[in-house]
Amino acid sequence: MPIKRLPAALAALATALALASSHAEEGMWTLDNLPLAHLKEAYGFAPDPAWIAKVMHASVRTEGGCSGSFISPDGLVMTNHHCVEDCVGQLSTSTRDLMRDGFLARTRTEERRCPDFSLDRLDRITDVTARVSKAAKGRSGAEYSDAKRAEIAHVEAECEKGGPAGVHCEVVDLYHGAVQHLYRYHRFDDVRLVFAPEYDIAQFGGDPDNFNFPRYDLDMGLVRAYENGSPVHPADFLRFDPAGAKAGEMTITSGNPGTTRRQFTVAQLERVRDVDGPWKLTRLAEQRGLMTRFMQESPENARIAKEELDTIENSYKAWYGQLLALRDPEVFALKRREEAALRDLAAQRPELKDDVGAWDEIARAQAAWRGIAMRHRFTEDAQGAWSEFFDIARHLVRAADERAKPDGDRLPAYKASRLAATEQEVMSSAPIYPAFERLKLTWSLTKLREWLGVDDPLVKRVLGRESPEVLAARWIGETHLADLAVRERLWRGGRAAIDASDDPFIRLARVLDPESRALRKRAEAEVEAVEHKNAERIAQVRFAQTGTSAYPDATFTLRLSFGKVEGWNADGKPVAPFTTVSGLYERATDFAPFRLPPTWTGAKGGLDPKQPMNFVTTNDIIGGNSGSPVIDRAGDIVGLAFDGNIESLGGAYFWDESSNRCVVVHSGFILQALEKVYHADALVAEIARKAR
Amino acid sequence: MPIKRLPAALAALATALALASSHAEEGMWTLDNLPLAHLKEAYGFAPDPAWIAKVMHASVRTEGGCSGSFISPDGLVMTNHHCVEDCVGQLSTSTRDLMRDGFLARTRTEERRCPDFSLDRLDRITDVTARVSKAAKGRSGAEYSDAKRAEIAHVEAECEKGGPAGVHCEVVDLYHGAVQHLYRYHRFDDVRLVFAPEYDIAQFGGDPDNFNFPRYDLDMGLVRAYENGSPVHPADFLRFDPAGAKAGEMTITSGNPGTTRRQFTVAQLERVRDVDGPWKLTRLAEQRGLMTRFMQESPENARIAKEELDTIENSYKAWYGQLLALRDPEVFALKRREEAALRDLAAQRPELKDDVGAWDEIARAQAAWRGIAMRHRFTEDAQGAWSEFFDIARHLVRAADERAKPDGDRLPAYKASRLAATEQEVMSSAPIYPAFERLKLTWSLTKLREWLGVDDPLVKRVLGRESPEVLAARWIGETHLADLAVRERLWRGGRAAIDASDDPFIRLARVLDPESRALRKRAEAEVEAVEHKNAERIAQVRFAQTGTSAYPDATFTLRLSFGKVEGWNADGKPVAPFTTVSGLYERATDFAPFRLPPTWTGAKGGLDPKQPMNFVTTNDIIGGNSGSPVIDRAGDIVGLAFDGNIESLGGAYFWDESSNRCVVVHSGFILQALEKVYHADALVAEIARKAR
Repeated sequence: MPIKRLPAALAALATALALASSHAEEGMWTLDNLPLAHLKEAYGFAPDPAWIAKVMHASVRTEGGCSGSFISPDGLVMTNHHCVEDCVGQLSTSTRDLMRDGFLARTRTEERRCPDFSLDRLDRITDVTARVSKAAKGRSGAEYSDAKRAEIAHVEAECEKGGPAGVHCEVVDLYHGAVQHLYRYHRFDDVRLVFAPEYDIAQFGGDPDNFNFPRYDLDMGLVRAYENGSPVHPADFLRFDPAGAKAGEMTITSGNPGTTRRQFTVAQLERVRDVDGPWKLTRLAEQRGLMTRFMQESPENARIAKEELDTIENSYKAWYGQLLALRDPEVFALKRREEAALRDLAAQRPELKDDVGAWDEIARAQAAWRGIAMRHRFTEDAQGAWSEFFDIARHLVRAADERAKPDGDRLPAYKASRLAATEQEVMSSAPIYPAFERLKLTWSLTKLREWLGVDDPLVKRVLGRESPEVLAARWIGETHLADLAVRERLWRGGRAAIDASDDPFIRLARVLDPESRALRKRAEAEVEAVEHKNAERIAQVRFAQTGTSAYPDATFTLRLSFGKVEGWNADGKPVAPFTTVSGLYERATDFAPFRLPPTWTGAKGGLDPKQPMNFVTTNDIIGGNSGSPVIDRAGDIVGLAFDGNIESLGGAYFWDESSNRCVVVHSGFILQALEKVYHADALVAEIARKAR
Repeated sequence: MPIKRLPAALAALATALALASSHAEEGMWTLDNLPLAHLKEAYGFAPDPAWIAKVMHASVRTEGGCSGSFISPDGLVMTNHHCVEDCVGQLSTSTRDLMRDGFLARTRTEERRCPDFSLDRLDRITDVTARVSKAAKGRSGAEYSDAKRAEIAHVEAECEKGGPAGVHCEVVDLYHGAVQHLYRYHRFDDVRLVFAPEYDIAQFGGDPDNFNFPRYDLDMGLVRAYENGSPVHPADFLRFDPAGAKAGEMTITSGNPGTTRRQFTVAQLERVRDVDGPWKLTRLAEQRGLMTRFMQESPENARIAKEELDTIENSYKAWYGQLLALRDPEVFALKRREEAALRDLAAQRPELKDDVGAWDEIARAQAAWRGIAMRHRFTEDAQGAWSEFFDIARHLVRAADERAKPDGDRLPAYKASRLAATEQEVMSSAPIYPAFERLKLTWSLTKLREWLGVDDPLVKRVLGRESPEVLAARWIGETHLADLAVRERLWRGGRAAIDASDDPFIRLARVLDPESRALRKRAEAEVEAVEHKNAERIAQVRFAQTGTSAYPDATFTLRLSFGKVEGWNADGKPVAPFTTVSGLYERATDFAPFRLPPTWTGAKGGLDPKQPMNFVTTNDIIGGNSGSPVIDRAGDIVGLAFDGNIESLGGAYFWDESSNRCVVVHSGFILQALEKVYHADALVAEIARKAR
């Protein structure tokens, strides 16, 4: 599951190691282990269990890699526009472009179900570390991973079996495997679009302004959770404070940061800097060029490729920013020093002596990865078959094999706990555009040949003596996977139906699958298992250094972060923390991405020019936090997090309090927009307000 | 001047430092300092001064960044197809596509002048180190560069003043500035296309096979040097040996390797690995995606963008290979060890103690570069205005300013010694395609905004409140620079004509020029001058370590390399050194880039299937060596170098004798192709043959 906005992050030149005292605002804290003493000391803030439980139950995570919150008693959920962008695109047609024109359901009957969208609300956290450790104890390599995976599957299955309808359970590896917690969620899979502004205001400034500030975006979307055909009525939801937060005021984000690597070893950071990061960045760059031209060809091409380009451009900038940090010689020198200090500590303490070898074992795993990375990309990562049809076909082929196995032996996507989500993906009614598929598939088959080589046996099995262009056109012409009935037959028919199919994408998935699975196994045994096992050992050394006062690296699970409204200095120039409505109108031109939609040009006179629009805070966030409610100490909404500044992108690896900022839509601006621009009276009335 | 094939290189895990004894085949040797003792010992080969002079005078360098050789008494020059590709494209039209169909002048009157092409033949080498050092002695920073540059301009001007017609003089910095040699060339600027095979056989296998072996290419082109309207008659030319070389036989390349960085410091290598290389690679990747789609739109788009895509793809793969080497942890560890050894040596010897600080000064220069790199790219490197019109406009604007200055103060392109070549570029009749210009300019203006930021004052001056799309379309519609008469008027009219012009590209060049020049100055003073000065000091330390038996890093000047015909082991599998004509026909399919042109499908029966086609040697080459004659100890041609294998790309930084190979077209295959496929009887008769 991709993290939609991997980017934004407020992080640490000092890393977790040094945080306890000096770096007040670093930290993405699990809700069972908040830094209560520090919060009391620094902010005079002492959230009680009821406050914590309420925030937890009012927060949600989206299947697409974002965060959100319930904001009404009738199941209304606030998140970002870029988090509902897929749904908006899927509900659009060549004659009704909701991305361009926006969407507003004036009544509940106008709300439209997103084809491929679900929400998870975290209900309970349970420590299962002892149980999982016991199962894997004394093992290594593939045996270690298999034992751990099997036990985790048992824990999850038990949890779901005993739970209420909609229960969804996941075991989360924290502190790089040193701790396992069982997270029990309630899943909502009937989610309907309620409101999305026009793209031009939602993402005003587009790619050029992405990760920048000053900013002028209404990057919001509203959906509603349904069950049994009716809106849900959550017990906990958050209330709006239209006044928002003042400069210097404490702010809290509640959301699901995707991935940080602040505790990576130097060898792992080198792999990111020198192997995985550069590959991703150059691949994204080439895809971006391809899309850019495709979209210039016609308005319809522009429409159908827009979300994909947005995702690509966002990932591109995010990776660029991350690599910029890793390529800073000072940052790397700091990481080396920190690692040396930890290794010294391990060498000095008798009880940690056995752990001294952990860093070298992780380094060896990185070398193993370098040896298999390229083939892994083009098989297991499916980079040679960039196509919705292929994604569906591979799920069908794999589901047929996997569903015949015991739950603990299955690939993750086909375990009982994930199967429904995978089926939703396969059976999605989202449109698939042949011209766009052809563009992507032709290109990616060319890359397969380029990187594995013309004479490679797998390449020969895929391409035969034909060309990528010809094959892509033929396969897309011949496939029946656009037909949902065909997909359903293959999904239900299992192995026999798959074996009988001569659909070209089913065939392609079958051709790639043996090597793909073999490489997946190797990566798990030779790389991931070694990393996890030894990261556990390093985590023990780190605990010896800092105690349990540290927070774990991000894992796309619920975390709170604590900060305040504050600007920063960019290249010596101060950046003020707020933008206003008047600034938006000053920045607007006649051309995208700085063109305003007609609703906004028309509404200008009715809006308060001094209304704060966007602002920045020092909260420690990262991609996955998109859509997080920004709340005050009372638990009321003062804003909606949607981005980080460009300085924050290195936050994946370390924290720099002086310049990393979270970018937020102001709560009062959201209400003004709904009322004065969209005249969404029913929604304005529905959204809960803080008690006066 | 771009090096067309930056890539290929046969280089060294041990670098120059250790070469003298163990690594027989490393080295790109200047003709005044060949490793004669080693050649005698290793090969029993003792070239006399006449042999050396003949090879020197039979070799040429092309303005486009390639090498070549005279192969007849009537001025016929052999080089690669990819070295005449620009000319072939420029002489093509929408109705006559010479790239696709090839070109053969059956008589001299059919030979067609290349719009923008010249050849340099090296006539004499003179050591001017003492003179240049004296001028710069005791200075640093900008003063150091200015003094050196002024003295070099004097030396060059004196040389040209006293020389015969066509004389062209360049002072070459060798050993990173420790030695300056004056190279006196004879320049031929009337060069006519004689023969180019169809692209599909010249570059059979296209990008997928580029830098790979086994290989099946007829990557050759023939041009003829003219003077005063008649073919020239060089005193020295090389003769073909149709039998070629056998496995294990000694081979020599004579050519102009562009750039190696084997003597870079670790800080400089980090800059390549972490700053410049990644930027270039991702930029090329995005350009490639853009081109790829543009070319899919129509056969005409495919035709007009083809050379550009070829250049981009070639550079992309070359940079990828170079970075792959630099990202290998073992390679970097080796470089660190070597540098530490040199620093230790300097610290130990009293006479070198002053040089110990040289490495740190170079490191500080790299940090300075990091601070200005981005703005430098978008101003001085013109990456925000990717357009032929802009390139012409900038030359016009700058020439107007520069020509008013003393020669020593001018920017290099406008010094007396280079002015004619610059004028040829400005006045080139090569076609400019508006649709293609629009594609490139729109994209690059978008990049300008993306990387310098919407709020940047320079970006605002360029874009105003308009969009890149709109501006690019308008400027390309309004410009008159397609008209050669307009260009000539502006070239001759000097500053007054430029000031009076309202051409949008002249305007753009004027807007960018002040900051561009300022950044150029800073880069020269804070980066290049520091690097050069301190590289000189390090070179002295290196001389103390290895004596003068080392060769200098490549400088796009004439070098010989010595090797032999030999395969290698790729991932444990042996690769045989030769391919044959039968292999070509086995590899062919119905689809580009593995499709044969009709001439070749028709000629199949008449060709010897066992004729060796391409082969590999251990010669140490790199981009710029494309088109080098491969000769035997008698000085006869046994092949035509056109590429390096993928393993060789790290050769820019170090040499690995076990796997780096030079890829060559076999001499006998060239003759068979001309005779049996193209029936080019006059050429076959003209090409000189070895004495029997």
